[in-house]
Amino acid sequence: MIEITEIELGVTADMHVHLREGKMMELITPTVREGGVAVAYIMPNLVPPITTIDKVVEYKKQLEALSPTTTFLMSFYLSKDLSPELINEAAKIGAIQGVKCYPAGVTTNSAHGVDPNDFTAFYPIFEALEANNLVLNIHGESPPKKDSDDIHILNAESKFLPILSKLHSDFPNLKIILEHCTSQDAVEAIEKLNAGYKDGDKVTVAGTITAHHLSLTIDSWAGNPINFCKPVAKFPSDRNHLVKAATSGKPYFFFGSDSAPHPIEGKARHTGVCAGIYTQKYALSYVAEVFEKNNKLENLKTFVTDAGVSFYEVKDVKCSDKCWLVKDKFNVPEVISSKDVTVVPFKAGDELQWKVEWRK
Amino acid sequence: MIEITEIELGVTADMHVHLREGKMMELITPTVREGGVAVAYIMPNLVPPITTIDKVVEYKKQLEALSPTTTFLMSFYLSKDLSPELINEAAKIGAIQGVKCYPAGVTTNSAHGVDPNDFTAFYPIFEALEANNLVLNIHGESPPKKDSDDIHILNAESKFLPILSKLHSDFPNLKIILEHCTSQDAVEAIEKLNAGYKDGDKVTVAGTITAHHLSLTIDSWAGNPINFCKPVAKFPSDRNHLVKAATSGKPYFFFGSDSAPHPIEGKARHTGVCAGIYTQKYALSYVAEVFEKNNKLENLKTFVTDAGVSFYEVKDVKCSDKCWLVKDKFNVPEVISSKDVTVVPFKAGDELQWKVEWRK
Repeated sequence: MIEITEIELGVTADMHVHLREGKMMELITPTVREGGVAVAYIMPNLVPPITTIDKVVEYKKQLEALSPTTTFLMSFYLSKDLSPELINEAAKIGAIQGVKCYPAGVTTNSAHGVDPNDFTAFYPIFEALEANNLVLNIHGESPPKKDSDDIHILNAESKFLPILSKLHSDFPNLKIILEHCTSQDAVEAIEKLNAGYKDGDKVTVAGTITAHHLSLTIDSWAGNPINFCKPVAKFPSDRNHLVKAATSGKPYFFFGSDSAPHPIEGKARHTGVCAGIYTQKYALSYVAEVFEKNNKLENLKTFVTDAGVSFYEVKDVKCSDKCWLVKDKFNVPEVISSKDVTVVPFKAGDELQWKVEWRK
Repeated sequence: MIEITEIELGVTADMHVHLREGKMMELITPTVREGGVAVAYIMPNLVPPITTIDKVVEYKKQLEALSPTTTFLMSFYLSKDLSPELINEAAKIGAIQGVKCYPAGVTTNSAHGVDPNDFTAFYPIFEALEANNLVLNIHGESPPKKDSDDIHILNAESKFLPILSKLHSDFPNLKIILEHCTSQDAVEAIEKLNAGYKDGDKVTVAGTITAHHLSLTIDSWAGNPINFCKPVAKFPSDRNHLVKAATSGKPYFFFGSDSAPHPIEGKARHTGVCAGIYTQKYALSYVAEVFEKNNKLENLKTFVTDAGVSFYEVKDVKCSDKCWLVKDKFNVPEVISSKDVTVVPFKAGDELQWKVEWRK
């Protein structure tokens, strides 16, 4: 058996990235590239959320100033502020590649989100997305109902899946992503919606999978706010299904880190802990480790490059070099910080096996 | 309908109390009585755990000095340091009323605990407990196995229940308590083991229920370390079964608060959050509120007084007064503190309806 010590991944993509604003944005934006990512799809859940062309253009400019060789794909936040006309205009000038849908109340800065039980109100927007070949990104959790077993944090994703199926059935040509799949049910739903898929077909419904959900389970975040994110990591069997999907080489599962930095003060709290895990700076190192452990390194490039780039039909990229991973162990630092802000990275202190290198 | 505004509860009992040592003990011990509790069964998981007569006698003396009118029932920590001879001697002088069993690794200070899959090693101890009419208190969770669905924090209690049944079958006259029941499965197991119970029978297997598990669910502690305890609060349906059991008036379900104070620094952490919820100072106020909401105030005295006192066969008590609850709303303070230590109480800031009064 030959040991693999270098892997060429090409123009890699992370299709779910939170870069925030201000001092946090300044610290985190350059780490997209450091973590091995060339193309990043940027979340619009700022405060207030991004719902105008001016704001998205200005935000992209700020990000490009901080990391000129990273390709930023931009998005709007689905809300009543959007209109089909705005979508058409934004698509025409290439200001956005998609729209992100947050059910109200399910995660960080989702207070302006929508009621997924009343999606028909947004059908004109979805029609405009479909017509312009833009992507609809969905945080797929039904909003919690506190006093019954109907919906709680462990089944909120499963409860959302029928809504996903209906959307796909109503908009068969709309490109939809179920973001950050966390459950066996989610994996099976994406498989089912792609049941007729044949090599070379255009994928219309895909699931993204984060780095952290490939290793965490419920026991990992109980008592460890640093591992708390939404949707929460679930059972070992769910995690195993995610690993199987991510490493499968199938084009409808690809990488979206949902790297979501919070200042350490937002994590070390006795109440109201911020949901989100910061993985950006070591994104591909975390992922490669899982693929290696499962003897699936040959499918890593599909997951972190080809499937996402193909789904989004990414054409122009800012970098002229390629991402490589090189077997070379190192320890994740305890914190990532500037003079203004400190973030604890995922697996702080742990040893990882693969380092990022950019080569011409 | 007549509104109840006062309830006489008599010589109340909380059969699962953590009072710690040092500055924390000084702050917390007087709050047993403040919370409406006359008799408290004290946990032995100090560092190191209590496994000698000298230590348990000395600890009780310290507690009595801090709260002379509280009746402290004491316990040993089940470990290889115990022997049948020690149990016999401790029983003879009334030094302990029971022994607490912690499976290794399941909660705070359980590192010295036992392997519940190998209980036969402790059968000589259990025989001595049975012979002396002492109680075996069990933290009923199987130790976690991280990489399979076999055992995780949500099913660890359910997985333990066959061990409880076997113990009861092997020691039918040993008084056993399944501490802090959190699941429908646990409630049903206690019901099943008491299936032949008739009024006036002696209860040998009982379940205690905390105040906090009568209101919390998994959504309550996700992102709120202050609500994180072991066993973790589970689903709404589990919580509903606990409420039904607690308010049932059945003598084999009674109050054990598992009030477990930690300094706020142990809660406001980004990793390694201490497990435990502090409820002592408002113990009966929390409980009464649940009984009232469920129209079961008539069964409150069974739960917080009669059932526990009867199970432990409590004879001598230190107080000459009785606990009453009076309808008189107040807000739980944000913190309980001395100059040395600060603890955040359960439901900090919330309004409660019932106040404790001690009357001759």
